[in-house]
Amino acid sequence: MREWHTLSTDELLDIKSGLEKQLEEYGALGLDLDLSRGKPSSDMLDLSNEIAGGLDGFISEDGADVRNYGILTGLPEMKRLFSALTGVPEESMVIGGNSSLALMYQSFVNLYLFGATGGDPWMGQKVKILCPSPGYDRHFGLASDFGAELIAVPMTDEGPDMDVAEKLAAEDEAVKGIWVVPLYSNPGGAVTSGKTAKRLAEMKTAAPDFRIFWDNAYGIHHIWEEHEAPDILKLCLEAGCPERAYVYFSTSKINFPGAGVSFIAAGPEEAKKFAAHMNRQMISYDKINQLRTVKFFGGDPDVVRAHMKRLADRFRPKFETVFRCLSQLDGLGILEWKKPLGGYFVAIDTLPGCAKRVVELAKSAGVTLTDAGATWPYGDDPNDSNIRIAPSYADGEQIEKTMEILLVCIKLASAEKLTS
Amino acid sequence: MREWHTLSTDELLDIKSGLEKQLEEYGALGLDLDLSRGKPSSDMLDLSNEIAGGLDGFISEDGADVRNYGILTGLPEMKRLFSALTGVPEESMVIGGNSSLALMYQSFVNLYLFGATGGDPWMGQKVKILCPSPGYDRHFGLASDFGAELIAVPMTDEGPDMDVAEKLAAEDEAVKGIWVVPLYSNPGGAVTSGKTAKRLAEMKTAAPDFRIFWDNAYGIHHIWEEHEAPDILKLCLEAGCPERAYVYFSTSKINFPGAGVSFIAAGPEEAKKFAAHMNRQMISYDKINQLRTVKFFGGDPDVVRAHMKRLADRFRPKFETVFRCLSQLDGLGILEWKKPLGGYFVAIDTLPGCAKRVVELAKSAGVTLTDAGATWPYGDDPNDSNIRIAPSYADGEQIEKTMEILLVCIKLASAEKLTS
Repeated sequence: MREWHTLSTDELLDIKSGLEKQLEEYGALGLDLDLSRGKPSSDMLDLSNEIAGGLDGFISEDGADVRNYGILTGLPEMKRLFSALTGVPEESMVIGGNSSLALMYQSFVNLYLFGATGGDPWMGQKVKILCPSPGYDRHFGLASDFGAELIAVPMTDEGPDMDVAEKLAAEDEAVKGIWVVPLYSNPGGAVTSGKTAKRLAEMKTAAPDFRIFWDNAYGIHHIWEEHEAPDILKLCLEAGCPERAYVYFSTSKINFPGAGVSFIAAGPEEAKKFAAHMNRQMISYDKINQLRTVKFFGGDPDVVRAHMKRLADRFRPKFETVFRCLSQLDGLGILEWKKPLGGYFVAIDTLPGCAKRVVELAKSAGVTLTDAGATWPYGDDPNDSNIRIAPSYADGEQIEKTMEILLVCIKLASAEKLTS
Repeated sequence: MREWHTLSTDELLDIKSGLEKQLEEYGALGLDLDLSRGKPSSDMLDLSNEIAGGLDGFISEDGADVRNYGILTGLPEMKRLFSALTGVPEESMVIGGNSSLALMYQSFVNLYLFGATGGDPWMGQKVKILCPSPGYDRHFGLASDFGAELIAVPMTDEGPDMDVAEKLAAEDEAVKGIWVVPLYSNPGGAVTSGKTAKRLAEMKTAAPDFRIFWDNAYGIHHIWEEHEAPDILKLCLEAGCPERAYVYFSTSKINFPGAGVSFIAAGPEEAKKFAAHMNRQMISYDKINQLRTVKFFGGDPDVVRAHMKRLADRFRPKFETVFRCLSQLDGLGILEWKKPLGGYFVAIDTLPGCAKRVVELAKSAGVTLTDAGATWPYGDDPNDSNIRIAPSYADGEQIEKTMEILLVCIKLASAEKLTS
């Protein structure tokens, strides 16, 4: 196996024409394959079906009728279970609906309209948000809905590149926040280290109202080894910035993406403020669903953890298929990738300038991939190299076939590049 | 029965001292009664228990798995059922979560941050919102969370006093919106007439981005005769202001206040914009709950209507008890009230300056009422006369007892007033 950059142009042109033929043959099959969907497969969802199987009562542990109005910040038993799973203190928590993204959005609404504790509303100010990239497109899109400027910060194996983040936050008071997916980052699967988290909590920021949007979406979603997200609320407290971080979590990828339960946790003042503004817009989120969720797991964090193991057992083989296929390109010097430590995705890097072309070639053969660039602010990957592979939804056979075609596309785009 | 203002001071002082004794005796009983809670009673909720009784499948009529991500604006079968019940076109609708108030809040968020179609963001502008009073305290509180100035407008039997509303809207470009509960207003139970609705749709407003917040909370909640809310979206379209109105509805008082389904409907551009910003914060509201709701009613609007009749049968006797008790003060000239046409409340008016005192006296005898003034902007009733009675939650015996004490309090406060 020789690295392709050591091949002659003629050798590469030969390879290229063979690949073109192969891709044409795939194209003729009229396939419809898709590795773009970051959602669980039906058989993963089936593990939770009983949660919708009926309730034998509507009274919460403190005697409240969950069918009726009341209990703004959520059921105590829901908070206790979440706390046992994530280490977040119950008193810092406000229970949300089926979307933690909606809680993130609401955090931005509060910051823009009412300001952070001790600060002015962000509306009308220049606001820049640090976006560790590659990262989660919906985080970036959310911030840009408010008109914030998105600043890409490199991702490392330990989380955001703190040398870069610290410098930007210290020098520019318009830099008011940073997105972090601490565990099994989307799409790279990196884990934010305790050291990185401490630097985030302690760093000097020109903006007094700098905020960390800590989306612990995969907080208990282990697939191989078990990792733990650093306790960012505690670190911020110890660093003397008790209001700096918001923490988000949900059961979207524990039971049902369409009908889970979420929470936000924050510093003492920010949690109170969040609840106060929430009180203006509702009397509580859906408490029947909270009770249903608690009952399904018997209120027992160990039952949840066992459930997560069963989910991982269904998910792991899909990842392994992707790894096995990608390994076939080892040694060619045309693709870089790392096994994620967990999460929902595999991030790959083609030769610079090839990602868009790979996605386009794949499309021509009936394979849908996440848009190249989607993992960068404004959908613009400066290297045009990052592609997110989402193997959760498809079945093993589909993944195998899709990867087979994807490899051809990667090789063809690379050959085009190296001969152009 | 003589009107009290024709009695001599001595006669009134006699009456007063008798009432004081009576109230003291009630106070000694250590009662704990409550007519402040605008929520259904347990036996009303019981009519919907089966909705939480399990689902036998998760596939919507268009083949989508409701457990998973997707279908931003809600299930088609949910929209169809809502449309059949309310007359709102499905294509104008976005399905929400368990709180229509949250959709109202989101409308304000969008107006403040992004502006109305063709207008600037409201943030930073002087904004005044017309508040037909007595009205719903949560409407007023929501608007004031955004810093809007609340302007009381009188309520009539046909809805907001349009002579006043038209004048305010025409003369002051800061007047940017009006709250309306078209059917069975909270707390008076009035029905907005077609003529009033037409004037709202057609009126000249100094603000080009004037909005009607049309909360049809009790849209199918008939108790005696059946009324219908005017079709405000159509009226606005015909008046050449297609984006003027937002319509809200929910099943909070059809099945469960804590776990229902809501919708917002709006003009063509505003509905699109609402969905676009919603798309930044979630992938949909809880679709399992939408499916559960549709299935519970067999997707049939007539089944919903029959369900509402059963609910009304449980609610009606509570109202009748209140009416019967209040009638005992007829002819004394110390209380004004009208039978509501529907809804959840009875609004009464004491002699000017007596409402706070009535609530205070009641408290001393163990009876909790809604705070006097709560039905006015800033909790400030200029006449200090309006009290909202909420008979839905208590049982018949409790209502009887509470009303008995309330009558004593009204009489005592009136006697105090007339002898002061």
